Amino acid sequence: MKNTSFILMLLCCFSLAINAKNTEVYPTNWWVGMKTNSIQLLIRSTDDSFTTDKININYPGIAINKTYSFPNSKYIAVDITISPETAAGDVIIELNQKSGKQKIKWPIYNRRAGNGIQYAQGVTSSDFIELIMVDRFSNGDTANDKIKGMRDQSLNRKEMYDRHGGDLQGVINNLDYIQGLGVTALWFTPVMENDMEKRTEHGYAITNHYKIDRRYGGDAMYEKLSNQLHSRGMKLIFDAVYNHIGSFHFLELDPPANDWVHRWPEYTQTNYREIPLFDPYGTKSDKKKMSDGWFDKIMPDINQDNPFMANFIIQNCIWHIEKFGIDGVRLDTYTYNDLNFANRCNKAIMDEFPKISIFGEIMVHGVANQAYFEQNNIDTPFKSNLPSVVDFQSLYYGIIPALTEPFGWKGGVNQLYYTLSSDFLSKNPMQKVLLLDNHDEARFFSLMGENAEKQKIGFQWLLTCRGIPQLYYGSEVLMKGFKNPDGLLRADFPGGWKEDEKNAFTGKGMTDDEKSTQELVRKLANFRKNASAIKTGKMMHYTPVDGLYVYFRYDDSQTIMCVMNTSNSEKEIDFQKYNERTAGFASAKNVITEEKISTSQKTVIPATKMWVLELSK
Amino acid sequence: MKNTSFILMLLCCFSLAINAKNTEVYPTNWWVGMKTNSIQLLIRSTDDSFTTDKININYPGIAINKTYSFPNSKYIAVDITISPETAAGDVIIELNQKSGKQKIKWPIYNRRAGNGIQYAQGVTSSDFIELIMVDRFSNGDTANDKIKGMRDQSLNRKEMYDRHGGDLQGVINNLDYIQGLGVTALWFTPVMENDMEKRTEHGYAITNHYKIDRRYGGDAMYEKLSNQLHSRGMKLIFDAVYNHIGSFHFLELDPPANDWVHRWPEYTQTNYREIPLFDPYGTKSDKKKMSDGWFDKIMPDINQDNPFMANFIIQNCIWHIEKFGIDGVRLDTYTYNDLNFANRCNKAIMDEFPKISIFGEIMVHGVANQAYFEQNNIDTPFKSNLPSVVDFQSLYYGIIPALTEPFGWKGGVNQLYYTLSSDFLSKNPMQKVLLLDNHDEARFFSLMGENAEKQKIGFQWLLTCRGIPQLYYGSEVLMKGFKNPDGLLRADFPGGWKEDEKNAFTGKGMTDDEKSTQELVRKLANFRKNASAIKTGKMMHYTPVDGLYVYFRYDDSQTIMCVMNTSNSEKEIDFQKYNERTAGFASAKNVITEEKISTSQKTVIPATKMWVLELSK
Repeated sequence: MKNTSFILMLLCCFSLAINAKNTEVYPTNWWVGMKTNSIQLLIRSTDDSFTTDKININYPGIAINKTYSFPNSKYIAVDITISPETAAGDVIIELNQKSGKQKIKWPIYNRRAGNGIQYAQGVTSSDFIELIMVDRFSNGDTANDKIKGMRDQSLNRKEMYDRHGGDLQGVINNLDYIQGLGVTALWFTPVMENDMEKRTEHGYAITNHYKIDRRYGGDAMYEKLSNQLHSRGMKLIFDAVYNHIGSFHFLELDPPANDWVHRWPEYTQTNYREIPLFDPYGTKSDKKKMSDGWFDKIMPDINQDNPFMANFIIQNCIWHIEKFGIDGVRLDTYTYNDLNFANRCNKAIMDEFPKISIFGEIMVHGVANQAYFEQNNIDTPFKSNLPSVVDFQSLYYGIIPALTEPFGWKGGVNQLYYTLSSDFLSKNPMQKVLLLDNHDEARFFSLMGENAEKQKIGFQWLLTCRGIPQLYYGSEVLMKGFKNPDGLLRADFPGGWKEDEKNAFTGKGMTDDEKSTQELVRKLANFRKNASAIKTGKMMHYTPVDGLYVYFRYDDSQTIMCVMNTSNSEKEIDFQKYNERTAGFASAKNVITEEKISTSQKTVIPATKMWVLELSK
Repeated sequence: MKNTSFILMLLCCFSLAINAKNTEVYPTNWWVGMKTNSIQLLIRSTDDSFTTDKININYPGIAINKTYSFPNSKYIAVDITISPETAAGDVIIELNQKSGKQKIKWPIYNRRAGNGIQYAQGVTSSDFIELIMVDRFSNGDTANDKIKGMRDQSLNRKEMYDRHGGDLQGVINNLDYIQGLGVTALWFTPVMENDMEKRTEHGYAITNHYKIDRRYGGDAMYEKLSNQLHSRGMKLIFDAVYNHIGSFHFLELDPPANDWVHRWPEYTQTNYREIPLFDPYGTKSDKKKMSDGWFDKIMPDINQDNPFMANFIIQNCIWHIEKFGIDGVRLDTYTYNDLNFANRCNKAIMDEFPKISIFGEIMVHGVANQAYFEQNNIDTPFKSNLPSVVDFQSLYYGIIPALTEPFGWKGGVNQLYYTLSSDFLSKNPMQKVLLLDNHDEARFFSLMGENAEKQKIGFQWLLTCRGIPQLYYGSEVLMKGFKNPDGLLRADFPGGWKEDEKNAFTGKGMTDDEKSTQELVRKLANFRKNASAIKTGKMMHYTPVDGLYVYFRYDDSQTIMCVMNTSNSEKEIDFQKYNERTAGFASAKNVITEEKISTSQKTVIPATKMWVLELSK
């Protein structure tokens, strides 16, 4: 490992030294032995121009198929094929620039698989994801808090949209805490360079797809983190942004042509409406606004119909996965993409990495609306190949109303029941990513009126329901915040900065509720690691009655009974009522409290309470 | 026509005279030339018993295939085949009863198609259905208000659940009014005999599937009404009840065996929950309760797994259609049936009558839930063959919230927008039956806070949206009533009784709002008769903005623009905004007011207002 890194570093330095001045190639490298071996190189001269798109490459196994010029003569593109028998090494590309003939080295490496490290493993229902905003988690290296030459020079923890200084070293420093909590996979909001003037905390305004933001520690630190995760048996999720770039991206500041992003006569924002995409009665104009309108003034909307831009994005996804050892991909603003492009990109990723998992952000309202964007059981002219989604339906129309609205025919916990039952629309419900909150949604604890018992019910549901549970950093210690503005839910993790008085890593200054909630997550998530019924078992639920919802996770070797009392009054539990799953069992042990009760007797669950019970004979 | 009726009457009298005493055959007759020519006769002796199930039939073209006896020896069943070349006539069936050998005549007729009357035509989106509760519409014959020997001897218009005296003669008397209103098809809540002790106003507790209730005028009056409708070019819809019978049905009072209805150790009501039927996580016990639990104590739940009972029901459906000249079938409590049986019954009906339409009462919550029960685009282990449904989704989550809830991302008229867009789940959205109210739902006018303008918006939507519009009797004259109890929405149509002071047939005593609403329905429904764009055209709608919802119905020859302002403030209409459909047109004529406006200028629609505009060049 160390040797390899050293060699890579040497290669890196060496190639920089002899590269043509101010000329860049994207992707910045490739690997031998990839299935994806037809690559389109985008070559950019930052201060010169190309006199012709003709180039020379004299490297065994590499063939030039086609070259392209652009209205902006600073760019050319080159289609090459890297044949399977090609050896790793530095490819010399000869270019014709105004200033004369130039040579640039473009490395092709051996694949990381050769290192014996597992990656591209897929994130499954056996995992427990934590979503972290790196700037807000922990500051492990104050030297990178501000980077000279980058546009956003803010650094002020008191302002929610200024930078706070968190970085990947901060994450690395706390991997024991994270892993101890039961988390098995980390998802960061994008860590690619966001060299924007402000609002750089979230990461979705990417300005360079081939650089990890130096304020987080740059490429090396990200790779170090990836290696540490994998050596711990943990996984890394890549937050990919297909839909837009940051307005300071070089492809926007100095575009090859005018049509690499969608241009409108006047600034046109997306309507944020997915309906026209599948609506039999939808209009073209509503559909165009959805797909081609800009997400934000500072986020130009990628024109995925431009084949060069499409190739640029697809190749970057594959590059990022191979480069950093990614195990799963989260796709941002999925519904806003050109869906045919999205299918193409997903397929390219899955063809290259068959075991990898991909889940899309489908922030819509309605079970059928959500299903349209994933692999589903619906016969429609367009069929999505997206394997999985962030399950906002079981959040908006599930666990939130279950704990905040009165019980009714379709109200309260019956909403959760209704929503889960609609899984017959989906091909892969066990792959849906469950959440209580994230960087765009109000903290669950705030939505629950800061009722810690409800937060505990939420976590018990999250960690036992079908799908892949996802924690938003700090919700395990009752972090608060409503959205509008969204910065309020992006507060710093307590203890992540050395000046913090309260420290959730050590327990210092924490309230009893915070401690007990954190302990509940720790206990249940670690129990879950060995609970086959939850990880891969089936689910069964009974129609809720009077606010009481009982569901089971089960397989041949284990049965877990989950009893959620959302009512304001205690409820009698008669285990015989659920005999399709309780038959043959004699006792039930509460996984959190370790209390054991007999299933032959009726018992009473208090108001606003959840039990996760492991049944035994 | 008259000749045929006369002959039929003669045949009838003749066969009654020579039939075996107190022996009944079901179906009570059949026809030659039916595709359904393998019939299972259920033969019942009311006061004797069969010594053997062996019978004799000596009639050219009729073969006995198999006979069956039952634990209750008053019944036998016989499978016969009527070959295509069989001639109409009286089949003599020889039976062996305790009291000796008996003969019974069982007639086979020529089909009504021979009379040249159209029937089994299907009810389509070109139609306008009116739903009438016969007891509550008009009393055309006071002589049948109470029938001696029937159990319910109540007759009191002041009590909502007593009988009020309405009958089919009352409907016949007012066909000019009904047809003048633009209605093209009548659907009555069931008119089959309901010889129950009370609550006989709705008709869903059938006690004899082969008799029209004498309080409505009996078989002859129903046939007369059918003929009058058809001679007017109108259609008749049969409300079929697969799921249950009335507790005073002979099959319950004196059942052939114990298993013709579902028996439970103690009375078990259905849970009214359709979810376990499709839920991947559902329990068998919830599913069983749904399908096999009783709808009501006085409505035994039919065991559709009993092949004899299944045949009895299926044959009755076909018999009723042929006997009374039915054009469309509405299926009651559809979700409560055994769905495989329902498929079988639907198929039998559609095989026999290929053009007939069938729509089911799918009173559920959720677009996917509804879609499961109809012909849909969803790949599920069970596939429904039901062509169409009563579209409760566009009521509950459509037009009601559109006019009563604040506009929001998914609120107000956006709910309607969301719901209609989910038509991509359905095979036949143009066949969905639209409604504002019915015999189970609160009167729309009451839900609208008795705001006549909102009722008018409702009607304009009903008559222009995709699907088949259905009026509930009297809503055109602002009849009121909330449900709980449901009797409140089953009030008498004003003017249906000679003592009524107010008369909506003539306009006597009506308020201006009542008159103008009635006139709006009349005008629009009659306009609709010749409006190909609405009857069979496509639909297009724009994403609602600020409470303003604009949709189009269009085909090659006509474009109708519908503008619904659900907001409390007036809204500017810029026709150019909708240029996917307004391009090429110069003016717009309001179908109701006949006002004409230019589409090149902006105009303003008042608050809480709807316009139906026909565009012209």
